[in-house]
Amino acid sequence: MTHPGSGQVGTAGTAVRQASLREHNLALVLRHITLSERPPSRADLANATGLTRATVSALVDDLIGGNLVTEVDPAPRTGAGRPALGLVLATDGPAGLGLEINVDYLAACVVDLTGAVRHRAIRRVDLRPVPPDEVLADLGDLAATALAEASRQRLLLAGTALAVPGLVTSTGVVRLAPNLGWRDVDLAAALDAHPALTGHRPAAPGQPGAPSGPRTSGDPTGQGTSGVRVPTGQRADGGGWLTIDNEANLAALGELHAGPPGPATFLYVSGEIGIGAGIVLHGALFRGARGWSGELGHLPVHPSGRWCRCGAQGCLEQYAGQEAILTGAGLAGQGLPADAAIARLAELAKAGDQAASGALAEAGAALGVAVAGVINLLDLDTVVLGGIYAPLASWLGPPIEAEIRQRVLTAAWSPVTVRPSLLTRDAAVLGAAGSVVRAVLAHPAHWLTPPPA
Amino acid sequence: MTHPGSGQVGTAGTAVRQASLREHNLALVLRHITLSERPPSRADLANATGLTRATVSALVDDLIGGNLVTEVDPAPRTGAGRPALGLVLATDGPAGLGLEINVDYLAACVVDLTGAVRHRAIRRVDLRPVPPDEVLADLGDLAATALAEASRQRLLLAGTALAVPGLVTSTGVVRLAPNLGWRDVDLAAALDAHPALTGHRPAAPGQPGAPSGPRTSGDPTGQGTSGVRVPTGQRADGGGWLTIDNEANLAALGELHAGPPGPATFLYVSGEIGIGAGIVLHGALFRGARGWSGELGHLPVHPSGRWCRCGAQGCLEQYAGQEAILTGAGLAGQGLPADAAIARLAELAKAGDQAASGALAEAGAALGVAVAGVINLLDLDTVVLGGIYAPLASWLGPPIEAEIRQRVLTAAWSPVTVRPSLLTRDAAVLGAAGSVVRAVLAHPAHWLTPPPA
Repeated sequence: MTHPGSGQVGTAGTAVRQASLREHNLALVLRHITLSERPPSRADLANATGLTRATVSALVDDLIGGNLVTEVDPAPRTGAGRPALGLVLATDGPAGLGLEINVDYLAACVVDLTGAVRHRAIRRVDLRPVPPDEVLADLGDLAATALAEASRQRLLLAGTALAVPGLVTSTGVVRLAPNLGWRDVDLAAALDAHPALTGHRPAAPGQPGAPSGPRTSGDPTGQGTSGVRVPTGQRADGGGWLTIDNEANLAALGELHAGPPGPATFLYVSGEIGIGAGIVLHGALFRGARGWSGELGHLPVHPSGRWCRCGAQGCLEQYAGQEAILTGAGLAGQGLPADAAIARLAELAKAGDQAASGALAEAGAALGVAVAGVINLLDLDTVVLGGIYAPLASWLGPPIEAEIRQRVLTAAWSPVTVRPSLLTRDAAVLGAAGSVVRAVLAHPAHWLTPPPA
Repeated sequence: MTHPGSGQVGTAGTAVRQASLREHNLALVLRHITLSERPPSRADLANATGLTRATVSALVDDLIGGNLVTEVDPAPRTGAGRPALGLVLATDGPAGLGLEINVDYLAACVVDLTGAVRHRAIRRVDLRPVPPDEVLADLGDLAATALAEASRQRLLLAGTALAVPGLVTSTGVVRLAPNLGWRDVDLAAALDAHPALTGHRPAAPGQPGAPSGPRTSGDPTGQGTSGVRVPTGQRADGGGWLTIDNEANLAALGELHAGPPGPATFLYVSGEIGIGAGIVLHGALFRGARGWSGELGHLPVHPSGRWCRCGAQGCLEQYAGQEAILTGAGLAGQGLPADAAIARLAELAKAGDQAASGALAEAGAALGVAVAGVINLLDLDTVVLGGIYAPLASWLGPPIEAEIRQRVLTAAWSPVTVRPSLLTRDAAVLGAAGSVVRAVLAHPAHWLTPPPA
């Protein structure tokens, strides 16, 4: 896309180009506002972008009118002249609703344009005996509460992203979620019966909130995964739009954007009942040839070992999944909710309890075998421990590092960092909400004037 | 880079732009000649490229003068007028010298612009007790023969690519080649003592044959691996230029270009004394965060199993490497050269010999465990068996496929093809020579007028 010094195009036959220029320049100005260390004035933006002051002012007016940007009083400064108003991202503008279905909990959160978490809720419930429709009804309750809270805080719903612990097709079908016992569950269709899950967009009733059609035209991840088929379902309706994606993928994207700017490369390991992974290469999520990458939990660590729910033997999940760890530590079957059990496990390990330490050491070694294989294969420099592994990182980290030292051919020259997730246990649901917000920031024109459905 | 309808730029201050336009247009015309089903005329090229006939004629004259293109008599046609001469890639122009150091053989080959193999030689010799300098002296003999043969066939050396079974840095140092016992061997420096290894370029004496500086400016792989550090050493000298790269990477690139056009995604598995892999994603080699991806041989398949030369336990190499297979089949220690032993193994397996079949089944199962892990992680759709695995694919394929069926979560929806390499056993050395030729085709201007060193 071109970027001339002025946003004006003179001739009559260039409507399409003019529209795309405006789209480009809106995103450009918004990006400068987002990345500025202190609130820039319109003049600052004109300097930074090379656009004329008149063009910048018109664009900023549009951004303010669309609740994307707010004016703030400038910092006092010495020198002559009236100080100009500064511009910041709006905290009462569009927001993303993040939802997560996991095996033993449901979660919802609301994130605003600045990335601030404005609401979050988790409901512990073992979903393994529960049919998809009942799961969605429960999730609908969580979503309704989140939307009411967002509305009370004067936020506008831009869209919803739903994290699921399974393989999701591009049309929103969950092909397989072994730990939920789901196979070929058409979540996108089922969600039509639960309007609370996507809510409404008061700002522009009756208009779709996001582009329909191929995801590349409005990639809600903001990841520029061009050329890679994005395995999500998406739907435009009266309020917001919906993305369905694998939980480890959304968590990895959340982790990517929570970290320092720059093209990070890491393996995000999501520890829950199941174990998933998101592979971030040079700042972009790698989704695989068909969108189904990251099934770390089914890497064989003891090929003739324990049977797995997936039908294979010796999968990592059977040695380092939540149930394997809690069973090893003697904490299974005590009726403790998972988060309480994990907290108890950490206390016991801290106190030097042998069963707890042994279970964590065994899980860490199994994780280390799998992770060492991944690093030998992909040459990654960072491993991020997410989900239940985040609060247990002090105990899981050392055995993982020991396996890496022993097994990774390049370990002597290329140190590998193993660290807990910056988003702790909530990376997937926060990453989901954040993906909505990043899509708005990347394509503000779609929020201001949604394309025809 | 822009591509106006005419190669002419009028004003005086545009020398740089004019030069880069010429570079672009030379490559464009050459690409059309390469991809045409029948030899195009200058008029055909003007139609296909949108350049003027005068511009095309000047560019074609340059390509002919630089030995890149030859005129051929056209196919007879009906209709009026004198038929125009057709243009084809020259078979007496620049050629690539491919060299390979492996654990139990050395290889050399010469490939011309059309991709035809004009010379190939292999020397079976166990290099494990041999110091690097002696290896290079031996390789120098092979290279000298290859260059003499190339010269006899009126080919001009464009450059040399050397395949090594180890981890190569961007400055041409072999950090580690466990099966050779090499650690921190500065191959780029050592090669200076062996000028026969890079030869001379009679066409333009005294001029470097390839761009110096960062590889992205003249990526000899032609892979457009922009943003990924290319782990090779490269050196401009009086004759040609030199690339050093991992053997599985060069083999995977060879396989990529030997296949049908299009953005292929596959895992190339290189079976030799060691086991390496090249990962091709959407038509490009994935090299990892630091250029050291693909160490498939050290994926743990039995974490508490046999000790490996790398210092770890249970590496794939110990179960599916050449020595494990030959030992299992009772063919080790008989003084047979490896290629004869592999041929004998195939004969025995075909005849139903139990030890041979058992060894291949065990190796196939171990390969299947590792490959299933890779597919769970990366969601690839094709596995290519190269090196000694190519002639053994009939026996290794079925157990690999069985493990994939059992262990890959998505196997039911996403079939995975397991097949032998199109280049059979010689993929690495052919891929090396081909990488030189593809660099010339991608950047013909560098061949015609090398940039300053």
